[in-house]
Amino acid sequence: MSEIVKEHRHEFFSSVAECNAQQELPLTAFAQRVISVATEHADILGCGYAGMMKYNLAWVLSRLTVEMKRMPGADETFTFTTWIENFNRLYSERNFEITVGDEVIGYVRTIWVAINMETRAPGDISMLADLALTEHDRPCPIEKQSRMRPLTAVDRTEPYVFRSSDIDFNRHVNSIRYIEKVLNQWDVDYYDAHKIARFEIMYQQEAHCGTCVDINVVQVENVADVEIKGQNGVICRSKITFK
Amino acid sequence: MSEIVKEHRHEFFSSVAECNAQQELPLTAFAQRVISVATEHADILGCGYAGMMKYNLAWVLSRLTVEMKRMPGADETFTFTTWIENFNRLYSERNFEITVGDEVIGYVRTIWVAINMETRAPGDISMLADLALTEHDRPCPIEKQSRMRPLTAVDRTEPYVFRSSDIDFNRHVNSIRYIEKVLNQWDVDYYDAHKIARFEIMYQQEAHCGTCVDINVVQVENVADVEIKGQNGVICRSKITFK
Repeated sequence: MSEIVKEHRHEFFSSVAECNAQQELPLTAFAQRVISVATEHADILGCGYAGMMKYNLAWVLSRLTVEMKRMPGADETFTFTTWIENFNRLYSERNFEITVGDEVIGYVRTIWVAINMETRAPGDISMLADLALTEHDRPCPIEKQSRMRPLTAVDRTEPYVFRSSDIDFNRHVNSIRYIEKVLNQWDVDYYDAHKIARFEIMYQQEAHCGTCVDINVVQVENVADVEIKGQNGVICRSKITFK
Repeated sequence: MSEIVKEHRHEFFSSVAECNAQQELPLTAFAQRVISVATEHADILGCGYAGMMKYNLAWVLSRLTVEMKRMPGADETFTFTTWIENFNRLYSERNFEITVGDEVIGYVRTIWVAINMETRAPGDISMLADLALTEHDRPCPIEKQSRMRPLTAVDRTEPYVFRSSDIDFNRHVNSIRYIEKVLNQWDVDYYDAHKIARFEIMYQQEAHCGTCVDINVVQVENVADVEIKGQNGVICRSKITFK
């Protein structure tokens, strides 16, 4: 490990050009920054893209949980602070606090696994044992990831085929794009009336350019469960609590 | 006008997390930066979002032309330099040079009009006449915007309905999203074999959440014409020259 840097910070600016119809940073652009900041901290710790390639491994996001009092607005400067809560040979738990000046506007919890670049199966990361030295007991006062059970009924279904713009550096569907397809299940008017209090996604399988899926939605009052399901089963599950 | 600043520069970094299957910055993320840098320069010149709101106007991108020797790669630092080539009471022509260190990797030409926030019609911008003082004769050695004629035949058509994630701050479809829908007409394998030498898009009408369109494509050898057409006619036209 390069150096023990328990916290990493990055300041961002949400330009008008990036903002959505609710005049705030979209959850997709927000989640993109979660991944970037995590990658930066991993780079500093010597286990970024280059560091992991030595073992033929790449980090992939397994779970993402976002709970925001409010999203950054247009032309607002905000700061991500990230740290590792827990590291073991199978996964790493990384949290984030988001602030605007002295105001804490929300928290994020993530879980990362490393996949083998050839087999695409989760890899053992015990050779990174030193990462445990960076574990930090800084509080992250939002609930841990929820249990997400298979849907037993479906309110509505939309078919979708992943396209070239959905594909990332690792030649599978970009983690952010699943979030986008989930959020697309509600229209602009719905988001005008209902902000997202808590958003969770759990990634289970890879999808590729051309993969055909069904996007299934069940909503009971202000809680929605969404699954993106391909021919070989569920690709990801998401749970949204609206305000 | 706040100050005569003929050139504005912004340095960017293309993270692995943003890159596409070809391991380079996608044209969509690139075009987003074009808009951000233009907005920054307009802010400096006193005619950014806040400055234009005084006249109940907002800048909208009318034409975008990108010609890159190569796109920024993963983990690469690159710089946008922008300047106004021409300003008149109807539109403004703004160019960009993109460099990596001393290497010029490409150029961009844009045309901007201002729309009235209530009528959504193009507005007169002669009150910004001072902007002409910022005109700069710095060379932009790529062809001016092509004439884009209506398609007389169509090779293939895809229907699409714009979704909430396509909508921006101005509550219409984000300029970048049209580019994405155009690029989606080719799959990852095609882009592995064919880089884009020149990309052009001309915006003609607004679309909104729920707008149903046909995406029509005609391709003759390495040149493709694409139109996105709604019930009230063409929303945008694009021309792509592949290498």
